[in-house]
Amino acid sequence: MEIFLDCLPCMLRQALDAARMATENESIQEKIMVETLGILSDYRNYATAPELSEVIQDRVKALTGVADPYKAVKEADIEKALRVVPLIRAYSDEGEASLLRALKVSATGNVLDSALYLDYDLEERLKEELERPFSLSDYEVFKKSLDTAGEILIIADNAGEVVFDRILVDRLLKTHGVVYAVRERPILNDATLEEAQSAGIGEGVILMSTGCGTPGTVMTGASQEFQEVYRRADLVISKGQGNFEALSDPDREVYFLLKAKCQRIARALGVELGGYVFKRVEGR
Amino acid sequence: MEIFLDCLPCMLRQALDAARMATENESIQEKIMVETLGILSDYRNYATAPELSEVIQDRVKALTGVADPYKAVKEADIEKALRVVPLIRAYSDEGEASLLRALKVSATGNVLDSALYLDYDLEERLKEELERPFSLSDYEVFKKSLDTAGEILIIADNAGEVVFDRILVDRLLKTHGVVYAVRERPILNDATLEEAQSAGIGEGVILMSTGCGTPGTVMTGASQEFQEVYRRADLVISKGQGNFEALSDPDREVYFLLKAKCQRIARALGVELGGYVFKRVEGR
Repeated sequence: MEIFLDCLPCMLRQALDAARMATENESIQEKIMVETLGILSDYRNYATAPELSEVIQDRVKALTGVADPYKAVKEADIEKALRVVPLIRAYSDEGEASLLRALKVSATGNVLDSALYLDYDLEERLKEELERPFSLSDYEVFKKSLDTAGEILIIADNAGEVVFDRILVDRLLKTHGVVYAVRERPILNDATLEEAQSAGIGEGVILMSTGCGTPGTVMTGASQEFQEVYRRADLVISKGQGNFEALSDPDREVYFLLKAKCQRIARALGVELGGYVFKRVEGR
Repeated sequence: MEIFLDCLPCMLRQALDAARMATENESIQEKIMVETLGILSDYRNYATAPELSEVIQDRVKALTGVADPYKAVKEADIEKALRVVPLIRAYSDEGEASLLRALKVSATGNVLDSALYLDYDLEERLKEELERPFSLSDYEVFKKSLDTAGEILIIADNAGEVVFDRILVDRLLKTHGVVYAVRERPILNDATLEEAQSAGIGEGVILMSTGCGTPGTVMTGASQEFQEVYRRADLVISKGQGNFEALSDPDREVYFLLKAKCQRIARALGVELGGYVFKRVEGR
C-alpha cells in the first residue's frame, strides 16, 4: 500500500515518542527529529509505510544506542494483557461461534497497541470492543476453507496482542497445524521471538521469525525460510495495520485481521474508523 | 515561548489540513508537505511556534493561490457559534458572578477551534465545558484591578470564538472602554476584521488589527498603532494558545484566557489537558 500524506505527521510523532522512550537527552531527541524530517522528505523513495518507519526507527536506535526503545512498553503491555486473560477466555468460550469469537479476540488485542489504559479502564474498554461485531468479515469463506486446510500461518503484530492471539492459536491447534511468525528484530512495540515467548505462545505451535525488521512484513525482506512457509501454508492470517500496509497486494490469498485505527486505513478498507476487519484478499 | 518538539508533528498535520482545504490537487498537497518538512527542520531559527506556523501557512497560500484556506471553516464556525448564543447568554446571565461567567464563556469559545461538531453535539459539549471551573484563575486580582481601570484590550483568537467574546465585551463595555484586536491577515482559523464583523463585534467597541499575520501576537511584528494601545491599556486579556505562545514573556502585565488544548501548553501552565486558565503574568 502506498504511503499516504497522513502517514508523515504520524511517523514524525512516532519518532518523538520513540526518542523519548530511548533517552532523556533533549539534544539527541532534537537530532532525531531533524533527521526524521529529512528522511520523511524522501518518502516517495519507499514503497510502503513500514519500510519508511524502519529507517526512522533505525536512526532512533543508532543515535541513542538503545536497541529496543519499546522494551519496557512491550513488557508492560504483555503484563496488562495477561491480567485480562480470564475475561477474554470467558468471552471466547461463550456461545457456539467460538472460532469467530477467537478471531474477534485476536483482532481486539490490537487495542493494546501503544494504549495507555489503567487496568480497570482496559477491562471496561475490552468489554465494549469485544461486543463490537466485525464491520467487514469474510468469516464464512474462511470457515469453509478451514475444512480442507492443513497448515495455518499467522503473522503477528504487537507484543501485548500475542496474549490475545493465544486464544485463536489454541482454537486452531485443535484441528490444524499453526505457524506463528513474529518480527526478526525489535521495531516499535511489535512482537519478536522474545515477546512471543514471554506472552506464552509455545506448546504445539511452530514459532518463527519472518526475517524482517519492518513493522509490517515486506516479502522482499523476508527470510527464505519464511517465504517458503508463506507459500506453502493453506491459510494465511495477517494481523494489524502494519502487515496490511506491507502485504496489501499479496501474491497469494491472505486474510487480514485488524482494527482500522487510522482514518486512511479505514477508508482503504471501506469501514468506519475503529472498525474491525477480517478480510480475504484473493492475491495476484 | 520556545517551540516544543511536540509542535513539529502537529504543524506538519496542520499543513496537510490547510493544503487539503485549499486544493484537491494531490501533487500540490505533496509539494506543500515536502516544503513543510524543510521549513520544520529549521525550527530552531524561529522564536515561537506562531512565527514558524505563519511561514508554513504562507507557503500553503503561495503554492495553492488561495489567500484564505480556512475561509469556509471560519464561516461555518461563526454560524455554529451564533446558533448557541441563547445557551451562552442564559449561562452568563445566571447567578451573581456574571463577570466571571462572561470570562468563562469567552474561554469556552476556544472549543470551537477547528472543532467538527454537529449542532446537537456542540450544545451538549458546551454545556459540559461551561460547567467546568477554571483550573487556574486570577479572577480576584483581575476584578480588583478592574475598579481603577479605564481601557481594556482583548486580543482575539479564532473566528467562531468572537461570538463568545461578545458576551465578555458587552459585560465590560457597561463600565469600561474596550479595544478588540484581531489578526491583520487570514491565518489558520483566526479572526480578522472581516470575521469579527460577521460575528457581530461592533457597537461601542474599538475594533482594530494587531498588524500581525502570525497565529499569535508577536509584538515585534505588530503595528505601531497596536503597540501603543497595548502599552496604554489598563488591562490586557490575551486569548487562546497562539497568543500565549507568542506573548508568554510579556513586557507588561497580561491576563491569559484560554483552554489548554495541548499537553505541552497544559504542562507549561501547570494544569491538566483541557483545563481552563485565566492567568495573570506580571510582565518584565
